[in-house]
Amino acid sequence: MSELIATSAAASLRKEDLHASLSDPVLDTMNFLNEITFRYPKAISFAPGRPYDGFFDTGQIFTHIRRYLDHLAGRGSSAEQIRAAMFQYGPAAGLIRELISSSLREDENIDVPAESIVVTVGCQEAMLLALRALIAGPDDVLLVSSPCYVGITGAASLLDVTVVAVEEREDGFRCADLDLAIGLARARGHRPRAFYVVPDHSNPAGTTMPVETRGELLDLAARHDILIVEDSPYRMVSPGPHLPALKSLDRQRRVIHLGSFAKTAFPGARVGFAVADQTVTDAAGHAGLLADELAKIKSMVTVNTPALSQAVIAGILLACDGRISEQNTRQAAYYARAMRSTLRQLDLCFPARKRGALGVHWNEPDGGFFLTMRVPFRADNAALSRSAENFGVIWTPMSYFYPHGGGDYSLRLSVSYLSEEDITNGITRLASFIEAEAKKEGELK
Amino acid sequence: MSELIATSAAASLRKEDLHASLSDPVLDTMNFLNEITFRYPKAISFAPGRPYDGFFDTGQIFTHIRRYLDHLAGRGSSAEQIRAAMFQYGPAAGLIRELISSSLREDENIDVPAESIVVTVGCQEAMLLALRALIAGPDDVLLVSSPCYVGITGAASLLDVTVVAVEEREDGFRCADLDLAIGLARARGHRPRAFYVVPDHSNPAGTTMPVETRGELLDLAARHDILIVEDSPYRMVSPGPHLPALKSLDRQRRVIHLGSFAKTAFPGARVGFAVADQTVTDAAGHAGLLADELAKIKSMVTVNTPALSQAVIAGILLACDGRISEQNTRQAAYYARAMRSTLRQLDLCFPARKRGALGVHWNEPDGGFFLTMRVPFRADNAALSRSAENFGVIWTPMSYFYPHGGGDYSLRLSVSYLSEEDITNGITRLASFIEAEAKKEGELK
Repeated sequence: MSELIATSAAASLRKEDLHASLSDPVLDTMNFLNEITFRYPKAISFAPGRPYDGFFDTGQIFTHIRRYLDHLAGRGSSAEQIRAAMFQYGPAAGLIRELISSSLREDENIDVPAESIVVTVGCQEAMLLALRALIAGPDDVLLVSSPCYVGITGAASLLDVTVVAVEEREDGFRCADLDLAIGLARARGHRPRAFYVVPDHSNPAGTTMPVETRGELLDLAARHDILIVEDSPYRMVSPGPHLPALKSLDRQRRVIHLGSFAKTAFPGARVGFAVADQTVTDAAGHAGLLADELAKIKSMVTVNTPALSQAVIAGILLACDGRISEQNTRQAAYYARAMRSTLRQLDLCFPARKRGALGVHWNEPDGGFFLTMRVPFRADNAALSRSAENFGVIWTPMSYFYPHGGGDYSLRLSVSYLSEEDITNGITRLASFIEAEAKKEGELK
Repeated sequence: MSELIATSAAASLRKEDLHASLSDPVLDTMNFLNEITFRYPKAISFAPGRPYDGFFDTGQIFTHIRRYLDHLAGRGSSAEQIRAAMFQYGPAAGLIRELISSSLREDENIDVPAESIVVTVGCQEAMLLALRALIAGPDDVLLVSSPCYVGITGAASLLDVTVVAVEEREDGFRCADLDLAIGLARARGHRPRAFYVVPDHSNPAGTTMPVETRGELLDLAARHDILIVEDSPYRMVSPGPHLPALKSLDRQRRVIHLGSFAKTAFPGARVGFAVADQTVTDAAGHAGLLADELAKIKSMVTVNTPALSQAVIAGILLACDGRISEQNTRQAAYYARAMRSTLRQLDLCFPARKRGALGVHWNEPDGGFFLTMRVPFRADNAALSRSAENFGVIWTPMSYFYPHGGGDYSLRLSVSYLSEEDITNGITRLASFIEAEAKKEGELK
């Protein structure tokens, strides 16, 4: 690494002179997780939240793009128009908004005009746009259900946005806690702008918000005049029937709905979207849509989402008439089976008495990629190292997902990427590790 | 537009409660330009800076992607590995850094390790990443050569970054002015972090920095301990020989080089990159590359650049052995011809005496897409409306490109997207418009 040795003349930067988001401990912990994965390649890893890729086939790329090109031709576009749509800079808000709008109608009972949609480079960009639009100054804060997906806290950190965590109880999120947090934030002179939540099969906790809570949350948002940012990437890869999305219940346009095709269709295409049908009125009284404002911000972030990525997603939407849920029946069944196998193996390894004696418990999600487990020892990076080295099993410390600390005795298991055999062996190894740690704790006491 | 009528219950946002970047006048003026273009579809437009798309052919998309897939297979990747590379989430820093690194060596005499490159969603994202990394607090400022590309001021606005404009003289940028600006900023308690410049065929002015100034600028950056952000999208679409890129002269790693494939290869793929080979040292003394830090920020913006987009660019790079300059010989000749036709027609329409009498002059770029023209009247939005409506010709007010005001009597002409015939007719119309305006001015005096 001779390039890294700075000569006296070469520019050298101090990390402390760079933006604070680069010193965010989440980045270091994620790096640590990557290192562990790299250092113990034979360990069974319950860490990555990536979809299983056995459903993909490289040849499909060409079929999907071709289908979209044919669709454009079928709708009367000339060869020159198609060429320009694919090769040129495109509209900041996206090319395939109509297709997404009708898919939302088919799959989610979300009825919004195409103009209220902005196509983004993955859901991550959609988060960044929504945050940037809504957080106007240092007093504005974002509320998040905690534990919390690191994508939203990362985007907040990048934009120097203050995050207020509303901690979930054992049984999940409670509106009363959000109510309190809003009151407290206001008392401190903050302006709560929005509440970010993954209502279905959340990452990291694996919890799902009951339907009554959804109604209550919408009322609360109206009462406090805040918006809800709903992020729901796991709905369509979970077996149905699904609870109604917050956006489908939203009669007052309180919800910005973020969508992703990364789990359902094609992770590498990096296509997500925001539905932002809120009205924005300027000082002169002109009204527009929040989506227009998000598109303006997007023009300063990525200009437009790559046409190729949009084409491949459009091809997939066209193939299933917008019914991503139906197109994902096989995937949803696959992930559900993985979740059931994990839960079954946990039951086998930790029969009720043992579970009680060890103080181990876990939730039982009926969909999604994740579950959480409480353990009787600090599930920190040191424990993760021991687990990987001595037991050949990797997991994610839940403490990574608490913006203000917490989760020290919990870990996240992701089941999306493992074979049945790996799940069985991995959980068995995990059980041995947990028992060994518990024994150590007992000896220390 | 019944959706836009807010009911008493529906959430309604006030524009003034959204982030200030959304009230940036540049956005409104760009919108105005789009409206004018839309309202006068038959006008000849010298406004858009997009590449000519007659060189593209939709079938190439498949050939390019296939070539990259074959390349991966030829290098020993299994079908499963290729599938994962295309479909899965990928590394934040990109898949095709080796190919870009060797292309930079072939074309630009820029010799940097692949690890110092971050592949981005267009050059716009690269700007955002560089700005975010370098601007750590409210005292940090970015210096820009002015008039200035709106992409960088847009990104600055999004991140609440203070921009200090270093105004170009008639003959272009002068180091002495930057030197002064840095001193002044420091005297005000600011910390100048970097200087953004498009050294070759700049957008909007069309100016090119002489080679002596390049050396002087590098010395100045070292003396003041600032970085240079070099953005050079127009080099490879301009006829050679090219002056050396700042990065190729950079012996002290003072230059962050931003690259784009949008003009040379495939605008709709949205692939750009940053070369950031600077050393970053943390408090514990660990050294890494600035590129690693940019990749971390990228993970919070778009996670990774779409694999499909990278595949299509890789396919193009493989086809020409990384020699984008050679692959663009035809394009460079095309744009050079367009520039020459524009200049010739200007000479025809404004013979020397007339030019002097009217007080009209323009620069004569030997490459790139843009030239600027000084006119004897305010080249503002009102003038643009008159030009489009009464003379059927559209241009861009240069005032759009001055972060702190200026350029009121200049306009930008883009020549990249017009046929020879349109150039001839368009410049003739422009001349009639300018004469009419000048006459009006004369009558008013």
